[in-house]
Amino acid sequence: MAAKFEQLGLIGCGLMGGSFALAAKRAGLVKRVVGYSKSPSTTERARQMGIIDVEAPSALLAVSGADLVLLAVPVSATEATFKAIRHLITSNMLIMDVGSTKRDVVDAATRVLGNNLGSFVPAHPIAGKEVSGVEHADPELYVGKQVILTPGPKTQVNHLKRAVELWEGMGCHVQQMAPEAHDAAFAAVSHMPHLLAFALMHAIINQPMGKDFLALAGPGFRDFTRIAASDPKMWRDVLLANKLEVVEQAKMFQRSLLNMLQMVEDSQGEKLEGMIEQASNSRSHWRMGQKGK
Amino acid sequence: MAAKFEQLGLIGCGLMGGSFALAAKRAGLVKRVVGYSKSPSTTERARQMGIIDVEAPSALLAVSGADLVLLAVPVSATEATFKAIRHLITSNMLIMDVGSTKRDVVDAATRVLGNNLGSFVPAHPIAGKEVSGVEHADPELYVGKQVILTPGPKTQVNHLKRAVELWEGMGCHVQQMAPEAHDAAFAAVSHMPHLLAFALMHAIINQPMGKDFLALAGPGFRDFTRIAASDPKMWRDVLLANKLEVVEQAKMFQRSLLNMLQMVEDSQGEKLEGMIEQASNSRSHWRMGQKGK
Repeated sequence: MAAKFEQLGLIGCGLMGGSFALAAKRAGLVKRVVGYSKSPSTTERARQMGIIDVEAPSALLAVSGADLVLLAVPVSATEATFKAIRHLITSNMLIMDVGSTKRDVVDAATRVLGNNLGSFVPAHPIAGKEVSGVEHADPELYVGKQVILTPGPKTQVNHLKRAVELWEGMGCHVQQMAPEAHDAAFAAVSHMPHLLAFALMHAIINQPMGKDFLALAGPGFRDFTRIAASDPKMWRDVLLANKLEVVEQAKMFQRSLLNMLQMVEDSQGEKLEGMIEQASNSRSHWRMGQKGK
Repeated sequence: MAAKFEQLGLIGCGLMGGSFALAAKRAGLVKRVVGYSKSPSTTERARQMGIIDVEAPSALLAVSGADLVLLAVPVSATEATFKAIRHLITSNMLIMDVGSTKRDVVDAATRVLGNNLGSFVPAHPIAGKEVSGVEHADPELYVGKQVILTPGPKTQVNHLKRAVELWEGMGCHVQQMAPEAHDAAFAAVSHMPHLLAFALMHAIINQPMGKDFLALAGPGFRDFTRIAASDPKMWRDVLLANKLEVVEQAKMFQRSLLNMLQMVEDSQGEKLEGMIEQASNSRSHWRMGQKGK
C-alpha cells in the first residue's frame, strides 16, 4: 500500500518539483499541494497549470500544515532553504530533496535540522530533461526511473519506509546507499559526461571553423552532446557541490584518455584496439537500470 | 534525373556497403550488384539476403564489367584494395569509397590510380550504427543523411556529377569540401566524441566499484556513451588514419576541460557558469544538418 499524504509543501516549482507534484497527485498519493518558488511568476504559473493548489508567499509558509515537504531547489540553495523552514518542521513531517549530490545536502541538513534531522530522507531521482522550468513539468518524468535514497543513522525508520512507498507509488525503482558512494557513482556516470560534453562544445565553438564543423555533425554527435544543452546554473552547482569526487573521476578519465592519445600518436594499433574493445564490450552489455555481472 | 548504372562492383559487403547496395537497387539506380568481401561467409550471406546478385571470388573480379565501384572496406585497407583492382579500372568507371577520413584515402588513390585518378570521387556518407556486419544492412541507412564528397583537381567533372546524382537519388544531402577541411571537421564532431566516450567507459570499468556505478547510470549516460559501443577495429583505423587532426582537436578539448576543472577546484562559480552557458546555448541552437549562423 502506498502512503497517503494530506498536504505536500513544495519548495521549488520547477521541472523536478512540478513533475513530482503532478505525479504524486495523479497517483493519489497527495491530496493538496501548497507551493512556493523564489520567482512569484513561477509559483503563479504552477498554480495555473494545476501543479499546486495554493501559492505560499514564503518557503516557511509552504511547510506550514504539510505532512510531506519536498525541496526541489538548486543544491546550492539547500542549506538556506532548511534554515528558512526549520521553525515549522515537526517530527511527523517527511522531508525530502531531489538534489543530484547527496553528501553536501546531508551535511547541510545535519548542520541545520537538529532534533528533526530524523525527518529528512535525502533523495535523488535519476530523471531530468535538458530543459528546465515549470512549463516542462511532466507527470511521466519519474515513471520507471531509479531513485536513490541516502538515509543516515538518525533517519527515522517510519519516514524512510514512507519515502520508499511514495516513490514506488509513482512508478520508481528505489535503492538505498551511503551519500559518499552515491556521489562517487554520479561523478563517474553523470557529472563527468556533462563536463566532457560541455568541454567538447566549448572547444568546437571557439575554433575559427567551429560553426562549419557543427553543420556536419551527425547522430553520434547529437546523442553525445545532448546533455551539453543542460541548465548552466544547475550544472555549475552540481559540479561545485561534488567537487572532490568530480576531480577524482577526472583524474581517472585523464589517465584513460592520455593513454589512448599516446597510442594514436605512436600508431600502436593493437593496444589501441584493445582499449576500445574493452570499452565497446562493456557498453554493448550495459543496460540502463540493470546490475552488472 | 538520377544516374542509372548497369553494374555495381561492391567491395566490402558489411553494414555500409550492404546498405548502399540495397538502397541503390531499391531506388532503381543500379541494376545488378557483383559483390566481394574478404570473408566468403559474408559474401554468401549478402547474396542470400539479396544484397548482391553475384558473388565475386576477388576484389578484382568484382570490378570486372562494372560501371560503378564502391569500396566499403576499412580505411586502413583502402590502398591495398586500390592496388588489387587497378588493372581493371577504366576511365568510364565511377569509383567511390565511404571512409570516414578523406586525406589518407585521397593520398592512397593518388599513389595507386595513376591516369585513372579522375574516376575516383571520395565520399563520406554521415551514417552508421553501433552494430556492424552485413546482417544489419538497411536500405534506410542513408536516407536523409549528409554525404560529403571531396573531389580533387583531377576528378572528372562527369563522374562528380554522377556521384552527386547517385547519392541524391538515394535521398541524401550532398556537400563538397576539401579533404583537409573534412578531416578537421570530423576529428572535432565525430572522432573526438568517440575517443571521449571510449575513454570514459574505460575509466569507469577499471575502478573497483565501476560495475556498481554503471548500474546507476541514467538516460544522459546512455546517450552520451552510445557511440562507445562502436566497432573497435573500425575506430582503431579511423583514429589512426586521422591522427594529426585528432591530436590537434584533443589539444583544444584539453584546454577547455582543464580550464573548467580548474574553475571547479577553485570554486569559481561565475566563470564556470559562463563556460557552461556558452556550451549550453550553442548546443540548444544546434540542429543536425543545419548551417549555423
